[in-house]
Amino acid sequence: MSSMIETPVKAGGEAEATDLVHRTREFIRSEVLPVDDRFDGDVTRAGGDDLRRELQEGARRRGLLAPHAPVELGGLGLSMTQRARVFEEAGYSLFGAMAINAAAPDEGNTHLLAHVATPAQREQFAAPLVRGEVRSAFAMTEPAPGAGSDPSALATRATRVSGGWRIDGGKIFITGADGAGFFIIMARTSGDAGDRGGGTMFLAPAGTSGLRIGRHVPTMDRSMVGGHCEVAFDGLVVPDEAVLGEVDEGFRYAQVRLGPARMTHVMRWLGAALRAHEVAVEYAVTRRAFGAAIADSGLAQQLIADNEIDLAAARSLLDVACAALDAGSSAAQETSIAKTFGAEAIGRVVDRAMQLCGGMGVSADLPIARIAREVRPFRIYDGPSEVHRFAIAKRAAKAARARVGS
Amino acid sequence: MSSMIETPVKAGGEAEATDLVHRTREFIRSEVLPVDDRFDGDVTRAGGDDLRRELQEGARRRGLLAPHAPVELGGLGLSMTQRARVFEEAGYSLFGAMAINAAAPDEGNTHLLAHVATPAQREQFAAPLVRGEVRSAFAMTEPAPGAGSDPSALATRATRVSGGWRIDGGKIFITGADGAGFFIIMARTSGDAGDRGGGTMFLAPAGTSGLRIGRHVPTMDRSMVGGHCEVAFDGLVVPDEAVLGEVDEGFRYAQVRLGPARMTHVMRWLGAALRAHEVAVEYAVTRRAFGAAIADSGLAQQLIADNEIDLAAARSLLDVACAALDAGSSAAQETSIAKTFGAEAIGRVVDRAMQLCGGMGVSADLPIARIAREVRPFRIYDGPSEVHRFAIAKRAAKAARARVGS
Amino acid sequence: MSSMIETPVKAGGEAEATDLVHRTREFIRSEVLPVDDRFDGDVTRAGGDDLRRELQEGARRRGLLAPHAPVELGGLGLSMTQRARVFEEAGYSLFGAMAINAAAPDEGNTHLLAHVATPAQREQFAAPLVRGEVRSAFAMTEPAPGAGSDPSALATRATRVSGGWRIDGGKIFITGADGAGFFIIMARTSGDAGDRGGGTMFLAPAGTSGLRIGRHVPTMDRSMVGGHCEVAFDGLVVPDEAVLGEVDEGFRYAQVRLGPARMTHVMRWLGAALRAHEVAVEYAVTRRAFGAAIADSGLAQQLIADNEIDLAAARSLLDVACAALDAGSSAAQETSIAKTFGAEAIGRVVDRAMQLCGGMGVSADLPIARIAREVRPFRIYDGPSEVHRFAIAKRAAKAARARVGS
Amino acid sequence: MSSMIETPVKAGGEAEATDLVHRTREFIRSEVLPVDDRFDGDVTRAGGDDLRRELQEGARRRGLLAPHAPVELGGLGLSMTQRARVFEEAGYSLFGAMAINAAAPDEGNTHLLAHVATPAQREQFAAPLVRGEVRSAFAMTEPAPGAGSDPSALATRATRVSGGWRIDGGKIFITGADGAGFFIIMARTSGDAGDRGGGTMFLAPAGTSGLRIGRHVPTMDRSMVGGHCEVAFDGLVVPDEAVLGEVDEGFRYAQVRLGPARMTHVMRWLGAALRAHEVAVEYAVTRRAFGAAIADSGLAQQLIADNEIDLAAARSLLDVACAALDAGSSAAQETSIAKTFGAEAIGRVVDRAMQLCGGMGVSADLPIARIAREVRPFRIYDGPSEVHRFAIAKRAAKAARARVGS
Repeated sequence: MSSMIETPVKAGGEAEATDLVHRTREFIRSEVLPVDDRFDGDVTRAGGDDLRRELQEGARRRGLLAPHAPVELGGLGLSMTQRARVFEEAGYSLFGAMAINAAAPDEGNTHLLAHVATPAQREQFAAPLVRGEVRSAFAMTEPAPGAGSDPSALATRATRVSGGWRIDGGKIFITGADGAGFFIIMARTSGDAGDRGGGTMFLAPAGTSGLRIGRHVPTMDRSMVGGHCEVAFDGLVVPDEAVLGEVDEGFRYAQVRLGPARMTHVMRWLGAALRAHEVAVEYAVTRRAFGAAIADSGLAQQLIADNEIDLAAARSLLDVACAALDAGSSAAQETSIAKTFGAEAIGRVVDRAMQLCGGMGVSADLPIARIAREVRPFRIYDGPSEVHRFAIAKRAAKAARARVGS
Repeated sequence: MSSMIETPVKAGGEAEATDLVHRTREFIRSEVLPVDDRFDGDVTRAGGDDLRRELQEGARRRGLLAPHAPVELGGLGLSMTQRARVFEEAGYSLFGAMAINAAAPDEGNTHLLAHVATPAQREQFAAPLVRGEVRSAFAMTEPAPGAGSDPSALATRATRVSGGWRIDGGKIFITGADGAGFFIIMARTSGDAGDRGGGTMFLAPAGTSGLRIGRHVPTMDRSMVGGHCEVAFDGLVVPDEAVLGEVDEGFRYAQVRLGPARMTHVMRWLGAALRAHEVAVEYAVTRRAFGAAIADSGLAQQLIADNEIDLAAARSLLDVACAALDAGSSAAQETSIAKTFGAEAIGRVVDRAMQLCGGMGVSADLPIARIAREVRPFRIYDGPSEVHRFAIAKRAAKAARARVGS
Repeated sequence: MSSMIETPVKAGGEAEATDLVHRTREFIRSEVLPVDDRFDGDVTRAGGDDLRRELQEGARRRGLLAPHAPVELGGLGLSMTQRARVFEEAGYSLFGAMAINAAAPDEGNTHLLAHVATPAQREQFAAPLVRGEVRSAFAMTEPAPGAGSDPSALATRATRVSGGWRIDGGKIFITGADGAGFFIIMARTSGDAGDRGGGTMFLAPAGTSGLRIGRHVPTMDRSMVGGHCEVAFDGLVVPDEAVLGEVDEGFRYAQVRLGPARMTHVMRWLGAALRAHEVAVEYAVTRRAFGAAIADSGLAQQLIADNEIDLAAARSLLDVACAALDAGSSAAQETSIAKTFGAEAIGRVVDRAMQLCGGMGVSADLPIARIAREVRPFRIYDGPSEVHRFAIAKRAAKAARARVGS
Repeated sequence: MSSMIETPVKAGGEAEATDLVHRTREFIRSEVLPVDDRFDGDVTRAGGDDLRRELQEGARRRGLLAPHAPVELGGLGLSMTQRARVFEEAGYSLFGAMAINAAAPDEGNTHLLAHVATPAQREQFAAPLVRGEVRSAFAMTEPAPGAGSDPSALATRATRVSGGWRIDGGKIFITGADGAGFFIIMARTSGDAGDRGGGTMFLAPAGTSGLRIGRHVPTMDRSMVGGHCEVAFDGLVVPDEAVLGEVDEGFRYAQVRLGPARMTHVMRWLGAALRAHEVAVEYAVTRRAFGAAIADSGLAQQLIADNEIDLAAARSLLDVACAALDAGSSAAQETSIAKTFGAEAIGRVVDRAMQLCGGMGVSADLPIARIAREVRPFRIYDGPSEVHRFAIAKRAAKAARARVGS
């Protein structure tokens, strides 16, 4: 595994990081948010990849592109802690992460490639990705009974052929697949469905024979370019050089990717939740009912205060997890906790914001309903809350067993 | 006020009522649900009023039309208690209430007309409504700072003109307005915005000069024919015969309408929540993760059990309120409690159902996401939870003051 | 099994039942509550069995004793539905159920004996119990790893000896054991710990050789005469006539007892929660903060309204379960739901009441803190919420499996 | 105002601080916890002030006394951030904060005196307090309708007399009053009840004529030496030198005291909650039900995971607030959020721990029930959650008004 960015490359001092937060904020609110609002956060209606390229050009000009990517690949090299506030600012618009080229799954794929890819793979795949020339997809989730919240159920197979591997199987919910320039594909190279090892990651450019994009799964969200697609591998052959990292080490790399990727999701959606909250409180201070501003009624105060608390708690748990990741820990418990609490808190914040605005809250006249639509799936993807709670409890039980010596 | 149906007209014995539940169930599942599923609950795509007429023709043939309407008007004359289970069966499909002509706002308008209308008004407006020949709208809510969760802010004015009244003002969120055959309009005939009296209800056929349907407010739900519209009254003149009930008694009639209308909303959405729950548990017993059916994992059991509890509690509170209404009480506390708990419980049930199904839960491949979209606004309309809690607490405080003699 | 009270013996018409509610209320508030308040609900300090006898004498004189017991045994023969309101009135004081001889475990034991005992057993054990001459205990729960939330872990053994059975084992949390006149003992007559059958119930008078009352487990509650004790059986020999019902049928009888016993617990604690709520709202209407009565501040209104909702929902679920039990159903799902929701709602209500009263709420100057202390364990005994949720979910999954045919 | 500790005096590097955490942990678990367990956390039964002196002697020998107090006064001079982990370790035992002389109200009073007292006052009052020679009390809360959650209702009066002030009025819930060496008394020197200014703080040694300790309010907790008492001032005369800081500035000083005092409460109770959680998980990994360790059942996992999440979130919000306080901010929003979330999370954690342990959880055989009894009032004192939410929402509304320019 390449270790060149084991120690996060910092963007310089804190002053530069803070300045980057402010400049990102300014860019998002002046350039990106108006487009988001004009198209109700529907990226396809707003232009899809054309819009992406246009917004990223703006970010590039302002030096805001790919804040998470290593400097060698053309990014700004921010640590997890530093990117937290920048990504939150980006997330204030549903198109913001895309605009600074920090959207899922590209951002997580960049992180993964920076850690695992060979120099040639970095050149071929990571560098154009960081520059925004292509998008990417991460093909892991499968239709039942394959890999879902339980990754060990992985059913897609890669079998040895001369000079490479032949991949067969089907995937689902592959974000950004339609229009992606390349795919990172998780396939089983040993063992059987249910085994916790035996997975390998492969790189495959779009258009390779045997790789077919199927239908867009009609999910409730609409802000992701390229949708969430079914993808089929039918005799897809890739060369040995397409193996990402080591054979049979794919599940381990998935963890390398997923811990930080969960946190960057929290960062982005936290920005979206903050917007919903701010819009709602602004609504509540200007509208009146029963003789007073809505914001001054006790039951609205409950909603507002609970939002402030949830936002602060999600942010502080996120920072704890980021600090642990920056310190080189796997941070498994910290990221599970920050993801679970964060996804649920974000959902609650947006829901309360909607409630505060009454009928307008459920309409497209305010941005809250569309934010609700986008954040709901986050309690499911990157591991449903239930699976994270299961893992959190297992670790606590393991610690207790160590204490009692059983 | 007409008192002819003060005592609910019962549809006969309990056996007939139970039979009606079963026949409604059979009709909804065989005839209505397939259309709902084919069009993801989007009534416009599914045919709008054409679909409504077609489905209602099926209900009419089976003797299932307008179970709530008085027998004299062509309905089945069910009491509130009796209609609870019938409407819940109808609500199992998002198009079900429309199919049996028991959808909002027509059902509530029928109830109101049955209690308040003159024989001529009943003939002209109520009877065709019950027969499904026309739809109707109830024009009460106004854009800020007018009547919203605080009805006393009513700003639309009706002023005396020779032989009638001239109505000026604007409304918003008027469900079913586009295509409605007639409107019940709430306007201020005395006092000023903020006064708790002085409202009057008027009847006006669609197409009357000075009544204009504006844009559809783009709300998140899609199952209501005719949308939720802005409506403008610009010099709309109606004759004296258009007054519904007595002048200045409109706020009182609104309560006559709203108590039962809240309960029938709970009935219908309870059916939708039940469907989400049943679909989810069926999913959870057939899909596996971590070596067992999802339904057999402890954290899924929590979701399933909480849904069972919420459904049972919402249904039992509904029945308590219906029994009180059937007994002739205003049932203000009972309906506020049943509405508040019901709307929130329904939301929780659908959300947990979504969570149980993982990625499929947020897709249109299952009906849960669209049910979530439809039920969310119910925590806002018919009085937001916050306003009901305010009222519930006020009544409890009043009772406590009586006990302590202060 | 005796079937003489299979059909609940009703206390006459609804008028009599309502009158009984009112008379119970009057008795509790004038005679019982003052003692409760004087001793902070600590029954030992208040006199223990002496107090019990004195209060029961008052109830006897008023014709209020043992409303649940069959008329043939000297009770009032109320159905489950009828006793709901009577027991709630009794529960308004922590000593109220004891005062009308309807406290746990006597009330449940009476129910069990009425269904299962032989005429001789009824004469010897049930009749004096109903008359308040003795108390009783139900010895089922065992220290780990024995029978607890999982009754099948039953470890106490009964082995055949000449003319009877010899019982060996230990019990814990045996309510009322200290001072009880007799014990109903659950012991394993066949199979091994973990088997779902093989339990038998035995009757044994206090003072029988080999039956020893151990320490009072120091639980947080203080309103139960006789405490929650450890009980040891060390060569306790009982005759064949001591078998209650049939050998090896004990687990089935436990269900006969537990379903209704759970509901009567809900009834009683609902009364206690209602008192906490009423005291708190009375406090909140008389005390001021920030220029207004506490009850008129929005955040207090949230607490008050949520209490009203929880009380109403717990009561309505209770009534649904009682109606099912009165109709002869095992009502397993209904009683699990009513118990789980009821116990949790009661806890929430008392906690919110405490919060409403600020510092006074956590002091003995108001009755709320002691009510909190008494109701907390109810989320654990009669089956913890977690075990009920497990059972509720299993039944829902079973129904879903039937629907999908798997 | 003395500014000598405006900048927190640090105990040296982080290594020393970490070492202090470990040594505190070792001391608490080996010396203090056994006493706590032996007396069920009842400080009076355990010896009261005698116990306090004995435990503090142990802490003194180990160099653990008064970690929060300035070095000049004999303390260890920890910043808020540094004391967070030390106090959490101390809070692991209900007697732990007392043992290191960091219990309420002494710890908060030390903080206040360090900021506001004259050199003479520091010598006379603060130094002996830090050394553990005396305890102290903070006399602010009054019986209704005086100062409670609304401090501006302050009714106790101080009137000018020759060479000093005469104080008259009554206080309640004065923690530690019985046996305190001196009192800090809040009295009104100008304005009327309801005014937000006009309070002054006075210092008065115990035993001063006109200062009378009344009854102990019988609150549910039992771990505080000196109880929560009523205190009466009846012609209490104090000299000018007894004024703490400036006349009429008392409300401002109260804020100086309360922000950090809220945080140190969170720290201590967090330790208590952690103990409840750890005891419960240890119980759950060693006890079995339904064929598996309780900790491995899904519904127990929910409880365990939610505890882990709540503990982590409370801790992270606490750290955010401490960092803000250390940076010199008033940190009003941060401390309100950390206090509100912390107090509620701590309550939830202890409650879930209790639930996990079933019957043992509500008994004194485990420490959980007594921890529950101690932490419940924390949702009320230092400002009830409702009052903090009110303040949190007001600040959010103020910010929104600034954004929208209204």
